[in-house]
Amino acid sequence: MPLHLHAFPVPTFSSQTAPLASTPLDRWALARIRSTVASARLRFLLWDGFESPSEAGTPVGTIVFKNRRALMGWVWDPDLNLGEAYMFGAVEFRGDLTAMLVEIYRALGRATPRSWWLWQRSNDVDAARENVHRHYDLGNDFYRLWLDREMAYTCAYFPAPGCALEDAQIAKMDRVCRKLALTPGERVVEAGCGWGSLALFMARHYGVTVRAVNVSHEQIAYARERANVEGLADRVEFVEDDYRNLQGRCDAFVSVGMLEHVGLADYSTLGAVIDRSLTASGRGLLHFIGRNRPSPLNPWIRRRIFPGAHPPTLPEVFEHVLEPWDLSVVDVENLRLHYAATLEHWQQRFDAAAGDVETMFDETFVRAWRLYLAGSEAAFITGSMQLFQVVFARGSSNAMPWTRSG
Amino acid sequence: MPLHLHAFPVPTFSSQTAPLASTPLDRWALARIRSTVASARLRFLLWDGFESPSEAGTPVGTIVFKNRRALMGWVWDPDLNLGEAYMFGAVEFRGDLTAMLVEIYRALGRATPRSWWLWQRSNDVDAARENVHRHYDLGNDFYRLWLDREMAYTCAYFPAPGCALEDAQIAKMDRVCRKLALTPGERVVEAGCGWGSLALFMARHYGVTVRAVNVSHEQIAYARERANVEGLADRVEFVEDDYRNLQGRCDAFVSVGMLEHVGLADYSTLGAVIDRSLTASGRGLLHFIGRNRPSPLNPWIRRRIFPGAHPPTLPEVFEHVLEPWDLSVVDVENLRLHYAATLEHWQQRFDAAAGDVETMFDETFVRAWRLYLAGSEAAFITGSMQLFQVVFARGSSNAMPWTRSG
Repeated sequence: MPLHLHAFPVPTFSSQTAPLASTPLDRWALARIRSTVASARLRFLLWDGFESPSEAGTPVGTIVFKNRRALMGWVWDPDLNLGEAYMFGAVEFRGDLTAMLVEIYRALGRATPRSWWLWQRSNDVDAARENVHRHYDLGNDFYRLWLDREMAYTCAYFPAPGCALEDAQIAKMDRVCRKLALTPGERVVEAGCGWGSLALFMARHYGVTVRAVNVSHEQIAYARERANVEGLADRVEFVEDDYRNLQGRCDAFVSVGMLEHVGLADYSTLGAVIDRSLTASGRGLLHFIGRNRPSPLNPWIRRRIFPGAHPPTLPEVFEHVLEPWDLSVVDVENLRLHYAATLEHWQQRFDAAAGDVETMFDETFVRAWRLYLAGSEAAFITGSMQLFQVVFARGSSNAMPWTRSG
Repeated sequence: MPLHLHAFPVPTFSSQTAPLASTPLDRWALARIRSTVASARLRFLLWDGFESPSEAGTPVGTIVFKNRRALMGWVWDPDLNLGEAYMFGAVEFRGDLTAMLVEIYRALGRATPRSWWLWQRSNDVDAARENVHRHYDLGNDFYRLWLDREMAYTCAYFPAPGCALEDAQIAKMDRVCRKLALTPGERVVEAGCGWGSLALFMARHYGVTVRAVNVSHEQIAYARERANVEGLADRVEFVEDDYRNLQGRCDAFVSVGMLEHVGLADYSTLGAVIDRSLTASGRGLLHFIGRNRPSPLNPWIRRRIFPGAHPPTLPEVFEHVLEPWDLSVVDVENLRLHYAATLEHWQQRFDAAAGDVETMFDETFVRAWRLYLAGSEAAFITGSMQLFQVVFARGSSNAMPWTRSG
């Protein structure tokens, strides 16, 4: 997998356990780390068994630093190096990874958001393609190991908490269609269609025609094959292209899980694309990971998992995507606990397939993805990240349903 | 009614029909007015029957200028003087007032919003009291003539478009309670409680205790009387005070139709009040008239009907009320067509009671209120104004219901 080699070039941390006993400097560093998450119910150990004392209550797990580099890296830049050290095995999390990360997130509490001008860089067409390529083109075989049957790689909707993932992904698609009040014969544009499950669902169950774009070559190839096999190729067109090149008019514009990758600098461009696409009675739905307050994505996630990503606040989306075009907010739903549940399912499946994943890639990859999935679940559980579904319509249109459907 | 005299000091327009024929200057002015709303399907006439030609299609009504002052006032400042001239009888609208105003609003289309720094002035405690006094203390007898039985003076919720107003106001109250997921024994704070219907409803049907504040003396007196009569005085406390003085903790914070009167400059104060009131699992609901884009309230409405009012955009509310306190947006619903329906009912009732209203006040008052009600309906129909219900919760709280209830 050349992609994987490209993503993880040189390990900066070693999994070797330090041969010597810890020094007073090491113990100072450990106490310092401990103090930044004072209320976290966690044990912190050094390689020689030295433990930083805590008064935070019965621990839910133990974090072990295996060498000085892991320890000092964490002191220097915990946001980045927690992930780096973990993925290369220089730090061990003994216990439930999600529960331990929840402890850390909650303990960090209302940390001052760092400056985030760095994240304003535009993802131009080439950068967008490269960013998507590095994550979504890891191979359909890889994602098939742990996603649901529909290959939906976005937050599901669980009508009840115990619902199966397969059902919850179908329920999500149906919910999106009902929120858009789709009727047979309407034209839908989907920006960022993944492996095509929603586009196919809309055509199959709501009788619409769909033009769906995505810059991921592997995903589009998979989606086209499905459309052919299921006899929907005449009603669902999968286009390998950037959303900025979308042409033609539509009655509904939908985008599930793409806005996070658009980047703030290009929101007005996205708004312009929506405005030139939508008919006078048109409406749309944006489904995206967001924040309560502006803040950048964790730098490790950005380096290793999602280059170029930015989870926006609602005002960022409303002011830059909707407001300039007099698009009206019709409905907003926050589904963050549904994303936590989705991630729980994904982790169980990922763990069950970890042997196959390690064969495909390597142990470092498995650890990195475990941390990403557990860290994401912890972020949704603690409210550090939100999942918003926003329905909008033209400001002057009265075509929306009289009441919402659920 | 001293209030009424205070509100409408000296008529600046006369209802006298000009004795002389119109001049070329008058006809130029009429053509100029006509051109600003070129696509409106309306006839424009001068006092002598002169008509400005139009190609806009079959007219839905006729606007007649009765004298030069009405004509020139409209040219000079249409936003203000349409209302001034109408209320003093210097301009006649022959036809359905709402339908005619819808034509004007649509024709004005995407007019450039004027600068709005003027509206940033803080409504301090005294100003807030005076503003509320001038509108809400017009007399319970007046409002009783045309509001529903519950005296709910905010947007209703119509489960179906043909639903009766009385039922729709009950449905709105129930919807608010369900969105807040109230459970028996919880403490609710209501900021801006009107005549108390929601506070009483919550206590009666959801078993909560309520502290409700309002600066309107007449409304609080009415609400207290109801609480006594209905045996709810031990569970609903009506306090004649400013929302800024709210003390004590609550499980739910609700405000229906107050935010419009708070003013942008005091949003962070409102956020601080919410933050210091809400428990860790607390949530809240804000119900308010808003906009898709920042723009001031019509100056005539501000002068004659709602001094100090500002309908905000969602980003204005989210950034200044919620974001600083890490309050999470849980749910947003746009009910603007429900407000149009509510206003339709109010107008029918108001028209039926117009004789009584004229006896209470005078003809100018009746005309001003007719214009206000019809203009508001037109604003909601055309999307110039929105009605948002926003549910929020503490960012770190997972106490919200798993799915929304409708």
